[in-house]
Amino acid sequence: MLGIFDSGIGGLTVVKELLRRHPDAAFAYLGDTARTPYGTKGGETIIRYALEDAAYLVRRGATNIVVACNTASAYAMPALRERFPDATFIDVIQPAVQAALNVTRGHVGVIGTNATIRSGVYEKELHQRNDSLQVSSVACPLFVPLVEEGWLDGEIVERIVERYIDQLKEQQIDTLILGCTHYPLLQPVIQSVLGPNVRIIDSPSAVLDAMDIELPNGEQAYAFTDQLERVHELARAWLGIDIRPEQVSLEE
Amino acid sequence: MLGIFDSGIGGLTVVKELLRRHPDAAFAYLGDTARTPYGTKGGETIIRYALEDAAYLVRRGATNIVVACNTASAYAMPALRERFPDATFIDVIQPAVQAALNVTRGHVGVIGTNATIRSGVYEKELHQRNDSLQVSSVACPLFVPLVEEGWLDGEIVERIVERYIDQLKEQQIDTLILGCTHYPLLQPVIQSVLGPNVRIIDSPSAVLDAMDIELPNGEQAYAFTDQLERVHELARAWLGIDIRPEQVSLEE
Repeated sequence: MLGIFDSGIGGLTVVKELLRRHPDAAFAYLGDTARTPYGTKGGETIIRYALEDAAYLVRRGATNIVVACNTASAYAMPALRERFPDATFIDVIQPAVQAALNVTRGHVGVIGTNATIRSGVYEKELHQRNDSLQVSSVACPLFVPLVEEGWLDGEIVERIVERYIDQLKEQQIDTLILGCTHYPLLQPVIQSVLGPNVRIIDSPSAVLDAMDIELPNGEQAYAFTDQLERVHELARAWLGIDIRPEQVSLEE
Repeated sequence: MLGIFDSGIGGLTVVKELLRRHPDAAFAYLGDTARTPYGTKGGETIIRYALEDAAYLVRRGATNIVVACNTASAYAMPALRERFPDATFIDVIQPAVQAALNVTRGHVGVIGTNATIRSGVYEKELHQRNDSLQVSSVACPLFVPLVEEGWLDGEIVERIVERYIDQLKEQQIDTLILGCTHYPLLQPVIQSVLGPNVRIIDSPSAVLDAMDIELPNGEQAYAFTDQLERVHELARAWLGIDIRPEQVSLEE
């Protein structure tokens, strides 16, 4: 069975893309809304939380697990694979890196949370595959709170997006990786700030393009550690899906 | 000994006011930076975290404990007093309510996190003491991320502040309670949006004005659950204090 986890609700953008392609696939989603966000936290804390998230999904019978959170993907992959050797883990970074390499003309931009950008994982992965590539990264800590607040367009959002990514435009990137599963919701504004000639790579599409596993049909379950009502509302507003979240606790 | 806790670094505004008045007072501060923010979370989760925070301070020998977080003050006071009957708890809500009642001409505004505003605690406390008072409340979820990002002034900040509090200006409040310990850092912008005739009540000053306990001199300790380097930087940038934070874990 497929498991998917995220620090909160951002990973629902991966679910949306999954449902678009495989509407009846069986999966269990876990969102750690009691400790969200991960992107402002330190590496050891992120790893500890990711291990607890995966343990929950493994207990539910997940054998393939999508780490639908770039911050967790940036820090926790080796620890996850070591702790759960029988599960297959799919991160959101490798697929986006490959998709960017397929289209770039030489200069890739990367945006993400503080923790993801600080990890340097995108530069490392891009340079491992093409060491002449130019890579420019910017942390955009306000994007997650903006999306969570439901501010997805309008002048304030445009000004904040400009403040973070004007520097990437000036550096003339040709491809931009949205290194956070919340960011696809800001994609229209980001595209309009960068102009039509910059290709945008979002992790939900990239991870589904790259996912090479069996997806049997079956039950679709949504578990969250907090804020069930708000999760229900946001899932409907953002993704047009009506979910029945169940409450779980990971800390006991 | 005095203990002070907050969901993260916002409570350092209370420490700053404490040090201004009692530079040598002994205290231990705990910031739960591994699970911050509390203001986006549900009531039960907030209570559980506050009990763990207080337990840590009690183990360190605290007998007077300032709950330097409005969200925790809004949800957890009864649970804290029940669980730790030998400690004296001081919340940040009562002092701000009293300070507002002392100066208002009849219409008080309140701003805070989603969880604090949703709790209705300020309306309830204000109306218990003066049932003819008009009270208008607005949640401002982006203020904490703005402060944490270090954006304390400039046009984007002004536009965001206007978007949240223009409605309070139109409703002609005469007094505004800053119902979150992060918000004093945005006070200059908030004051300029509201104009000079609105009195602003901040919890750090109110709680220190109301605090009627012995403050012996002694060691000053700072404990955080995550992000020690960033805490050190922010404490220096915002508060001009050079702290040596120690790492603690509350979840085991």
